Amino acid sequence: MSGKVEKSLRSQVAELFIVRASGHNSDKQRRYPAWELSNAHLKRLLNEGIGGVILFGGSTNEVKERCKTLLDWAQKPLLLCADIEEGVGQRFEGGTWFVPPMAISRIYAENPLKGIELAELYGRYTAYQAKFCGINWILGPVCDINNNPKNPVINLRAWGEEEATVSTLICAFHRGVTKEKLLTCAKHFPGHGDTSIDSHLDLPIIKHNLSQLKSRELLPFIAAINEGVKCVMTGHLLLEAIDRNLPATLSKKIINEILRKEMKYEDLIVTDALIMNSISKKFGNSEAVILAFEAGVDLILMPEDIDDAINSLCEAINSGRISRDRLNESLSRRKRILEELATGTNKANLLNDSKKQSPIELKIHNKFSNELIINSQIIINPNTVLNNGNPVNLVRVDEVLDSQILSKSSPALSLPSSIGFKNIICHKDGVSPWSNDELNPLSFEKLGTGPIFLQLFIRGNPFTENGHEQEQWVAAVKQLQKKERLLGLIVYGTPYLWDKLIKVLNPLLPAAYSPGQMQDAQELALKSLINSEYLASDSHKGIRTSFTN
Amino acid sequence: MSGKVEKSLRSQVAELFIVRASGHNSDKQRRYPAWELSNAHLKRLLNEGIGGVILFGGSTNEVKERCKTLLDWAQKPLLLCADIEEGVGQRFEGGTWFVPPMAISRIYAENPLKGIELAELYGRYTAYQAKFCGINWILGPVCDINNNPKNPVINLRAWGEEEATVSTLICAFHRGVTKEKLLTCAKHFPGHGDTSIDSHLDLPIIKHNLSQLKSRELLPFIAAINEGVKCVMTGHLLLEAIDRNLPATLSKKIINEILRKEMKYEDLIVTDALIMNSISKKFGNSEAVILAFEAGVDLILMPEDIDDAINSLCEAINSGRISRDRLNESLSRRKRILEELATGTNKANLLNDSKKQSPIELKIHNKFSNELIINSQIIINPNTVLNNGNPVNLVRVDEVLDSQILSKSSPALSLPSSIGFKNIICHKDGVSPWSNDELNPLSFEKLGTGPIFLQLFIRGNPFTENGHEQEQWVAAVKQLQKKERLLGLIVYGTPYLWDKLIKVLNPLLPAAYSPGQMQDAQELALKSLINSEYLASDSHKGIRTSFTN
Repeated sequence: MSGKVEKSLRSQVAELFIVRASGHNSDKQRRYPAWELSNAHLKRLLNEGIGGVILFGGSTNEVKERCKTLLDWAQKPLLLCADIEEGVGQRFEGGTWFVPPMAISRIYAENPLKGIELAELYGRYTAYQAKFCGINWILGPVCDINNNPKNPVINLRAWGEEEATVSTLICAFHRGVTKEKLLTCAKHFPGHGDTSIDSHLDLPIIKHNLSQLKSRELLPFIAAINEGVKCVMTGHLLLEAIDRNLPATLSKKIINEILRKEMKYEDLIVTDALIMNSISKKFGNSEAVILAFEAGVDLILMPEDIDDAINSLCEAINSGRISRDRLNESLSRRKRILEELATGTNKANLLNDSKKQSPIELKIHNKFSNELIINSQIIINPNTVLNNGNPVNLVRVDEVLDSQILSKSSPALSLPSSIGFKNIICHKDGVSPWSNDELNPLSFEKLGTGPIFLQLFIRGNPFTENGHEQEQWVAAVKQLQKKERLLGLIVYGTPYLWDKLIKVLNPLLPAAYSPGQMQDAQELALKSLINSEYLASDSHKGIRTSFTN
Repeated sequence: MSGKVEKSLRSQVAELFIVRASGHNSDKQRRYPAWELSNAHLKRLLNEGIGGVILFGGSTNEVKERCKTLLDWAQKPLLLCADIEEGVGQRFEGGTWFVPPMAISRIYAENPLKGIELAELYGRYTAYQAKFCGINWILGPVCDINNNPKNPVINLRAWGEEEATVSTLICAFHRGVTKEKLLTCAKHFPGHGDTSIDSHLDLPIIKHNLSQLKSRELLPFIAAINEGVKCVMTGHLLLEAIDRNLPATLSKKIINEILRKEMKYEDLIVTDALIMNSISKKFGNSEAVILAFEAGVDLILMPEDIDDAINSLCEAINSGRISRDRLNESLSRRKRILEELATGTNKANLLNDSKKQSPIELKIHNKFSNELIINSQIIINPNTVLNNGNPVNLVRVDEVLDSQILSKSSPALSLPSSIGFKNIICHKDGVSPWSNDELNPLSFEKLGTGPIFLQLFIRGNPFTENGHEQEQWVAAVKQLQKKERLLGLIVYGTPYLWDKLIKVLNPLLPAAYSPGQMQDAQELALKSLINSEYLASDSHKGIRTSFTN
């Protein structure tokens, strides 16, 4: 099949693909081995000319080593990217993980100038840390308007719930990144906000016609392009009124007619990951790649089968289905934009940049991050959490394995346990705390006899299909209050759940909401709620302490 | 208090201390922040002359960076050590984690030459990977004889249950490490095997008199010294018949009279961590340090308060309680032995050594590790696990947070789920699966309606006080069999639990025992037990696969 493909064409075509790798250095450390190429495979592909790698997982130091290795294998500049919409710490341990963009939009609503300043610093610090790692391309900002609270995949990742806020803040973010000379990516064109379906799982359908899009969803993208964004990512979304057959990623009408021609956009277009169900299940690997390219896309992210994808695109060019001019157009866009990047595109630059920088854990970044947390938290009845008789600290998270949110020393666990609370973590792979009784959904016999302090880590996450909505937290709070067993409540993540819970919560109880789920957010919320005499006492010496071997 | 201490004495004294640091580069990544010094504190102490660092956690690449940084701060050679008794992967992700030494002793029982060869390679490969990281001192071999199956802290870490096996195998391990020119450490003198108390929690009392010790516990240490071991670690153990007041670590009779004089041992002696309860609670920080030094120890590991410890030892020297000669003796031992080490003691060597080596994930190490796993596993009724109706994969681990054993892609979870099992993980911080009914200890209503496949990860671990013994697994297996709901069983870790379970297990059920708990051990055991038609089928494509964002 690929035997006839000439080598130079193959390596040209390969340049337009971005494959996925673990940020860890060894194959065994991969968290998603079915999705992350092995080192042998990566090395061969980079040698054959693959032009970009998207990295997931590992620590900042590991990623730095990793980028050096990838550049060594490639022997040419690469696009090295990551989904670090919320700071390097969102994906790579050791970096700073900022509160979700939605929290900035709430600050902006009260103080626009402040919000803009924060969004710009947010982008700048993210880029600074990314550069330290060797990453030159940030797959953000999310330009979707989260106008559907049930949106399972955008949600807090959006820079707001209406177009003007999103437009203003994403431009500020972009300016921040640009000050560090890194590439951004406006996503997910033409707007993934108004859906309750996760495109990782199925193809969302969006009803708006073009004029509706122009009056809302497209505005942040137009603003981004005017601001100088050099890359746009397509969304796997079916816009029935515009193209009833093909999702945006594969649609000539949407990519070529609207984005290229109407919006006069001349820079890079990249697909969202083609491996996602909404594309891979419906169109198949090779046809999806060809359709995307025909639609006007330049770069293809994570096809299901990379070798087959390259071969198919080569064949489409050899057979004349796609013209050489079309290929050259994408190649020259990529070349032009890669050259504009100051950093990380080759090993010498990367080593040089890393050396010039201070250690990644910059005090100013952490201070900034904590300011964002404090400015976005809500604290009700501070200083009132006491240990009154065998209390339980019930912590709800999606997952406990490889968790970003909880480690042994996380304040959500270590602070309550330092003042005598028993920790119980509930998560989808654990023994369930739920009964079949709708009015009394929690199985009390599993949760001790004392009062219960609830900490809920819930936000819309890709692939989780809003699983948390099947959990009856509103009924559980009512049940706990009826039995006089609720000691307090913290919600970390979605404001939509908080809004529901606060309506039924006894106003005398200590409670907090934090959009951020990171350890500093846990510490700041808990230290506000727990009675300060406890924290000052000897028992508190155990904070963030655990045993070792 | 420390004002009068002259600087040169202080830096000499500091050289004899080993402090604890996280293998991660940033303060926020520390898993045990109460025990692991901050970077600012470490930097100051290294500048003041501290002579060694013990590292915990992080990946091999991070530790390599870390060692470079520590050497930069010290500007002189350092002892850089880790508790990597079972390979670098035991502490640092990306390294190889071997089956516990006890498994080698079982191979040795059947084939002594093979056992010796394996023990030597075990040491050599551990040292090779340690060198890559910058570690020059392996805190092993454990020379304790595990002659008490209830021993909560030595257990599988021992190289056997009787003196001849332990003596032979620890010498082979030492020879392997020595081939890579790294330092070993024979521990825990005079023998921690015959106790059911964990010295991390309380002071174990050992009844043997000297002649009893000489006929058993001391033999592996004598063998180690004859083999050329250059460092011995003291145990926090009270040997009533020899010194009724002071534990071995602080006892002149045990250290000076027995180890130095009777056994004619002239090289380094290091304490076990002084921060452990058995010392810190009973003697206090500064007095423990002085007593240990008076007893004849050269190096002090992890005192509770490092600055106070250095000052106290300086004062004891200034006041004449400890002689200058005694100080100089320890300093020159340290100097002599550090100079014998080929590697890692300074930054140039470290960088040079790392460059010369292939990537740490050496195929030969993995092959060796898998051979050890296969040679030490027991498989009963292979190829018989089927998915017959809503089966549950019930996995028991000590901890899920920062787990070495389980990650999202671990075969213990991904293999059963790839053939349709529902995973339920039970762990000490989760909702409990236990009822109060002794005969029917599992709460069935929480565990679905289908058959249950049990995977128990249980081994003696420091600080856990044999907590697993309160879990009624023997009764649970009986209960599941009575209800015809047991599908199969794997025990990873302690042979003592396996021995009990196998006595009650229906001999027709698929079952396995593996001393190793690592992912390869999970994969090899499960692939032996699961019916091969399942593994060959499409459904199996999901193995080691999980979702991503």
